[in-house]
Amino acid sequence: MSDRNLKELQLNQRGVVIWLTGLSGAGKTTISNALNKKLTEKKYFTQILDGDQLRGGINSNLGFSETDRIENIRRTAEIAKLFVNSGIITICSFISPTNKIRLQTKEIIGANDYFEIFVNAPLHVCEARDVKGMYKKARAGEIKNFTGIDSLYEPPANADLALNTEVLSVNECVEMILEKILTRISAG
Amino acid sequence: MSDRNLKELQLNQRGVVIWLTGLSGAGKTTISNALNKKLTEKKYFTQILDGDQLRGGINSNLGFSETDRIENIRRTAEIAKLFVNSGIITICSFISPTNKIRLQTKEIIGANDYFEIFVNAPLHVCEARDVKGMYKKARAGEIKNFTGIDSLYEPPANADLALNTEVLSVNECVEMILEKILTRISAG
Repeated sequence: MSDRNLKELQLNQRGVVIWLTGLSGAGKTTISNALNKKLTEKKYFTQILDGDQLRGGINSNLGFSETDRIENIRRTAEIAKLFVNSGIITICSFISPTNKIRLQTKEIIGANDYFEIFVNAPLHVCEARDVKGMYKKARAGEIKNFTGIDSLYEPPANADLALNTEVLSVNECVEMILEKILTRISAG
Repeated sequence: MSDRNLKELQLNQRGVVIWLTGLSGAGKTTISNALNKKLTEKKYFTQILDGDQLRGGINSNLGFSETDRIENIRRTAEIAKLFVNSGIITICSFISPTNKIRLQTKEIIGANDYFEIFVNAPLHVCEARDVKGMYKKARAGEIKNFTGIDSLYEPPANADLALNTEVLSVNECVEMILEKILTRISAG
């Protein structure tokens, strides 16, 4: 039995990476926290990986240039791969703005273990929310390379699921994700 | 309840990082594999992190200069911290040659979660084993900055445990580690 199979047996589940992509303010973190809570209640063992958390740790020596963003996501994908290879349901929320970046992620993690969710809200909605006050700063030129303002976000064409958070509630989003993944993560 | 406590409750154990330091060929990987097997048999949930594995993934863009070694270990310690914060018993085997590097590791992981084991065998013994043929290449000048040959290894002065693998069997080493950590990792 492979190490991974052994760990999945221990955890009584199958690992997968749930990758949330979308603009700042689209709702990635909110959805990932609510999804995490729900999965934990259902006795699944999970791991959240999130941009701010990793930028405070392993990615603390990276900025927001294109090169650094690619390296940021490369490292993140490698970490997600370690977790999924231990049978853990790994929820990642990262802007991951371009097709190139998401393709790299999928290649590192492996297509079979990568479930991509487009957390979709129009820019004007995200900007109106502006939870962290980042859009205001970006508009004022205090932050450079801010996705949606002076840095590109390419909407994913082939996401496994797209969630329009302008109209869906957090609970509805979580239920739609669960419906897609419960068979995938259940043991046996 | 903290996220970590919740995860430790799910796993019915308490997380710790077991950090094995020592020369190439001292027995770090052998001991970590045997320890991992024993802990898994006892129903603990573990994660192995090892130099070769990470150099094939997240650390693939790093070499063996002093700067790169420090970055290598910094990233490794940050990953170990993610695992231990999920309540997982994380077994790390890395040459981690200097006091400076090990101190950095301990600071990132946190002293309470860091258990340092000096896997100690004299250089001539490691060189005679030369499992990977690396010492031969280092002596021939084909590999530069090889620890023990043309790069320093500082024996740790304050390891939680030192194992003389010239005289101890693998099983004896594993039993000595278990004796030290079983109370620490057991729930409640």
